[in-house]
Amino acid sequence: MTTDRDDRTTILLDRAHHDGSTLYAPAGTPALGDEVTVRVRVPKGAGVRDVRLRTVRDGEPRLLPARRDGGDAHEDWYAADVVVHHPVTSYRFFLDVPGGYRWLDGRGVHDREVPDAASFRVTTHAPAPGWLRDGLAYQVFPDRFARSAAADGRAVPGWAVPAAWGDEPAGAGPLAGTQLFGGDLDGVVEHLDHLEALGVRTLYLTPVFPGRSNHRYDAATFDHVDPLLGGDAAYARLARAVHGRGMRLMGDVTTNHTGDGHEWFARALEDPASAERDLYLWDDGGPDVARPQGADPYVGWLGHGSLPKLDWGAEETWRRMVIGDEAVVARYLREPFALDGWRVDVANMTGRRGSADRTHAVARAVRERILAERADGALVAEHFHDAAADLAGDGWHATMNYAGFTRPAWSWLVPEGSDVPFLDLPVPVPRRPAAAMVETMREVAALVPWRVAATQWNMLGSHDTPRLRSIVGSRELVEVAATLLFTYPGAPVVFAGDEVGATGTNGEHARTTMAWDQAARGGGPRWDTAMLDVYRRLSALRAASTALRDGGLRWAAVHDDAVAYLRETPDERVLVVLARAPWPGVRLPGHLLEPGAQPEVLYGDLGVRATADGLDVSGDGPGVAVVRLA
Amino acid sequence: MTTDRDDRTTILLDRAHHDGSTLYAPAGTPALGDEVTVRVRVPKGAGVRDVRLRTVRDGEPRLLPARRDGGDAHEDWYAADVVVHHPVTSYRFFLDVPGGYRWLDGRGVHDREVPDAASFRVTTHAPAPGWLRDGLAYQVFPDRFARSAAADGRAVPGWAVPAAWGDEPAGAGPLAGTQLFGGDLDGVVEHLDHLEALGVRTLYLTPVFPGRSNHRYDAATFDHVDPLLGGDAAYARLARAVHGRGMRLMGDVTTNHTGDGHEWFARALEDPASAERDLYLWDDGGPDVARPQGADPYVGWLGHGSLPKLDWGAEETWRRMVIGDEAVVARYLREPFALDGWRVDVANMTGRRGSADRTHAVARAVRERILAERADGALVAEHFHDAAADLAGDGWHATMNYAGFTRPAWSWLVPEGSDVPFLDLPVPVPRRPAAAMVETMREVAALVPWRVAATQWNMLGSHDTPRLRSIVGSRELVEVAATLLFTYPGAPVVFAGDEVGATGTNGEHARTTMAWDQAARGGGPRWDTAMLDVYRRLSALRAASTALRDGGLRWAAVHDDAVAYLRETPDERVLVVLARAPWPGVRLPGHLLEPGAQPEVLYGDLGVRATADGLDVSGDGPGVAVVRLA
Repeated sequence: MTTDRDDRTTILLDRAHHDGSTLYAPAGTPALGDEVTVRVRVPKGAGVRDVRLRTVRDGEPRLLPARRDGGDAHEDWYAADVVVHHPVTSYRFFLDVPGGYRWLDGRGVHDREVPDAASFRVTTHAPAPGWLRDGLAYQVFPDRFARSAAADGRAVPGWAVPAAWGDEPAGAGPLAGTQLFGGDLDGVVEHLDHLEALGVRTLYLTPVFPGRSNHRYDAATFDHVDPLLGGDAAYARLARAVHGRGMRLMGDVTTNHTGDGHEWFARALEDPASAERDLYLWDDGGPDVARPQGADPYVGWLGHGSLPKLDWGAEETWRRMVIGDEAVVARYLREPFALDGWRVDVANMTGRRGSADRTHAVARAVRERILAERADGALVAEHFHDAAADLAGDGWHATMNYAGFTRPAWSWLVPEGSDVPFLDLPVPVPRRPAAAMVETMREVAALVPWRVAATQWNMLGSHDTPRLRSIVGSRELVEVAATLLFTYPGAPVVFAGDEVGATGTNGEHARTTMAWDQAARGGGPRWDTAMLDVYRRLSALRAASTALRDGGLRWAAVHDDAVAYLRETPDERVLVVLARAPWPGVRLPGHLLEPGAQPEVLYGDLGVRATADGLDVSGDGPGVAVVRLA
Repeated sequence: MTTDRDDRTTILLDRAHHDGSTLYAPAGTPALGDEVTVRVRVPKGAGVRDVRLRTVRDGEPRLLPARRDGGDAHEDWYAADVVVHHPVTSYRFFLDVPGGYRWLDGRGVHDREVPDAASFRVTTHAPAPGWLRDGLAYQVFPDRFARSAAADGRAVPGWAVPAAWGDEPAGAGPLAGTQLFGGDLDGVVEHLDHLEALGVRTLYLTPVFPGRSNHRYDAATFDHVDPLLGGDAAYARLARAVHGRGMRLMGDVTTNHTGDGHEWFARALEDPASAERDLYLWDDGGPDVARPQGADPYVGWLGHGSLPKLDWGAEETWRRMVIGDEAVVARYLREPFALDGWRVDVANMTGRRGSADRTHAVARAVRERILAERADGALVAEHFHDAAADLAGDGWHATMNYAGFTRPAWSWLVPEGSDVPFLDLPVPVPRRPAAAMVETMREVAALVPWRVAATQWNMLGSHDTPRLRSIVGSRELVEVAATLLFTYPGAPVVFAGDEVGATGTNGEHARTTMAWDQAARGGGPRWDTAMLDVYRRLSALRAASTALRDGGLRWAAVHDDAVAYLRETPDERVLVVLARAPWPGVRLPGHLLEPGAQPEVLYGDLGVRATADGLDVSGDGPGVAVVRLA
């Protein structure tokens, strides 16, 4: 718990380790009744003389034997069999050491009794499709990515204030939602080369339904794509082009609310006897009730009248959104759009109201419907805080990992004295030592099954946050952050513009346009080609390394200003070192390296070399090293 | 997380504090829609310049202002309003400090992002009846407490092996379950003076239904009380006598299973078409299936054929156990028994089987039925590990707090090198520093609403464990343990015999008889009158102090070998110091004491005195001090 600043480096490699990756647990999805063999790595230095498996079966813990299963001069391996008796069967390891015992769970090794929340889990729920986890996803906010020639001919709607492509986005005030830059879907089609060169495998597009705002989270209909973006035909063209390059396309749907300009809501207000009336939550005496003049009061998202909240207690909502033949979440997965999945907006609030909590039911049903439409479909939820309760593995495949990645990463890499606000908190992003980042990352990841953790959407920013570049303040630290992004378990997601050094101090201000004119000139103030090169190289690195995509995660060393961790599969071991500032360096055990070999530098300048005494990591910083050890 | 042994004393009083006690949260149960004002204490030394309240509403965190609400030269108080929008509404505090911020939740103060599981909670669920929390409960294992004269005349059943009252109970082998000492219910009636002198408010009796074992957890019927114990009439006499002294009486019911000698099970085996067939779980392909020769295989408790598991997927089970007019859990709450509530055996497994999890539904229904029979009824669940998921506050009122009290307390007080097995673990109880105890206690308590934590059944042993005396090895350390028991939040429960120094190295071996003959002679090897005096004094102390019964809990200081904590109400502040060994002592802030006053020693010999520099606690040990500061 202690994260006092000091100059000590904590070495974590002398502790037993297990995670859900293929070194430790079988690939594939077990069925109820199967036995799954799990393995644990026990360094000799840990002083462990016996290992047991603790599972919880029908509510009762059982301690089962583990057997020795290989090892060498430096470590022992143990194996044990988990009976998959529950859809989610939890387990952890009992380590017998002289004078006491330890528990090993997802948070690490404990020399005391611990609750069960951080236990490992094996689940019968099929994991996300491989493509969701494997490849880089790229987030595009359609109004700001690119304008096709057709954009010039379109009439500006009444709610919008036109902006020139090079304008700085408004960060506050009415303009933040109404400033229209006029990007469109054919604009995206025209720049898919940029995505391909970056190694993008999934294009995630924020909403394309018409609304009364530049962000379109206030849908006026789910029946067609905004003509301002080029309409259904342009969306279909984009889908074809994306799929033609072997990429995936994900849409963005608001299951929590619609816009108050939605055709359903208009009918609901007009006619209390209409079927649409049932779709919304009206004044229920609770908080967040909007009371517009001359209309019946209704529940709005955080009280906003512009975003009436859907009622998931109503069958009609289920029919229109999820289960009907033409339900919203189904229709766009079909030709001519053939979306590969959905990102769900405000997923954490969807179906939640007072004593009603239908979020899990909605998540399960949406997933089921997606998979019925396409077996390799994906479902990712927006979630800004602790999503563990919603991530058993049978609903959302993953969430946007603000809690377990974005927040802790920012807090480590932000300089002292930043004035960038920390998302929903009334203070700037605070600078914390690496231990704070590592503990939060471990704790959040430990609350969900490994396969969920390894599918989480890791982001260094999104359309709802300041830009990474504005938070960390330097290109060097962006590189450290990007290296973390591309080497940490989970799916890296880049918000369009981060890769060329976009800046912005809050979500709205950070919705910058892409400076294609500068790109064409080989760079410019809004097109940092050196940064782009960093992103391209790191993306290629991850694509070429099984360990970086699928490997387990062992934290190796933690210093206030640096961390080192291993990503490992049965065939590959990659060491990642990240330093935000100069630090003392560290000596890791030499046996991590193949005997007689030298580390193979995959990326970065930090020195990592084999000596007679071990694997010496230099104390330079800021900087990174990604080296293959085996 | 670190619990390295060293000689430092950590002072915790410079940190912000909140809990659910009356200093910080209103008494009473709010309704949905109410606003509840919660308060937080912020020592000046914490460097906090502003406080916000974070609640989670409909799945979304909200940061709301807190206002200054009093204070003095040493601390500030802040207040904020929680809208009770959910049956369980969670909240924590945001502490703005220069250069960062902190979160305050039930585990303490964190200088990093944390998940929500340890957030504080306000609930609309009525708390347990006051009597369950307020007074000492006393556990009696009927076969071992006392024999009335009538016992001599009873025939010994075929399964039983008679034992003499002074025999040492068998700790293993068949005899452990069949050795019959012949205690009976009228024997209990005859010794209620002992309970009254100890300050017992609740008598909790393990099962009284007939079975084929001395523990009777293998009920052969729920229709009448075991004639070996005196039958229904004796149970009624006991109930009258207990109630006549203003005490409460709690029964023990097995909702997870019956005995294989149960009349229901006999019919179920005989006739597959019988209604009783539905009551049990038959071979479902899962683990723990018993396969007795010549009978259909069925699920047994941990696979034991003697304990067939009930099927809570069957309506008939619900009818007979909970909801029917004459349902087991209802019938005994009525005259002539008028039980005040139930302790539920194997509650953690009840209703759980593979993908079916009906535990929460059973807990809610049993509670509802109990309260329908008597508004002040109580429901306590057996639970040996992390019960947080079952303790939202609408089901079990509390659990037997092995996880949050017994285990951590033992591990602190056990001497180095103990050979007493640690419950279900294959090692002796390990000796841990106090930080391990405190962290586990805080963490387990933080996972449930304060009112549940403050009602948990805290035990230093039960009929399922070794005796405290055999674990800690000395009378001095029993006194330290007992002081913890009587001064810690929750309901103290004493297993009959602990108060006179009973010994035993496992659950069966510890089911010792009460040496009434030695009591009559003023003491003896199995009747430690000095120990009894300790228990009586501590029990009286708790009964006389509102702070010890209802106060909040602030940890004040932690050293490997000592802890100090405050129990506080608006009107009383009690300091408790426990030392397992000599330690350096500690100086606490003098302002904890009323100006000009000296600490009022309520119990114990450790020195606590006011000096010009503060409140000095001496470093003697083992020993305890309970002093009233205000």
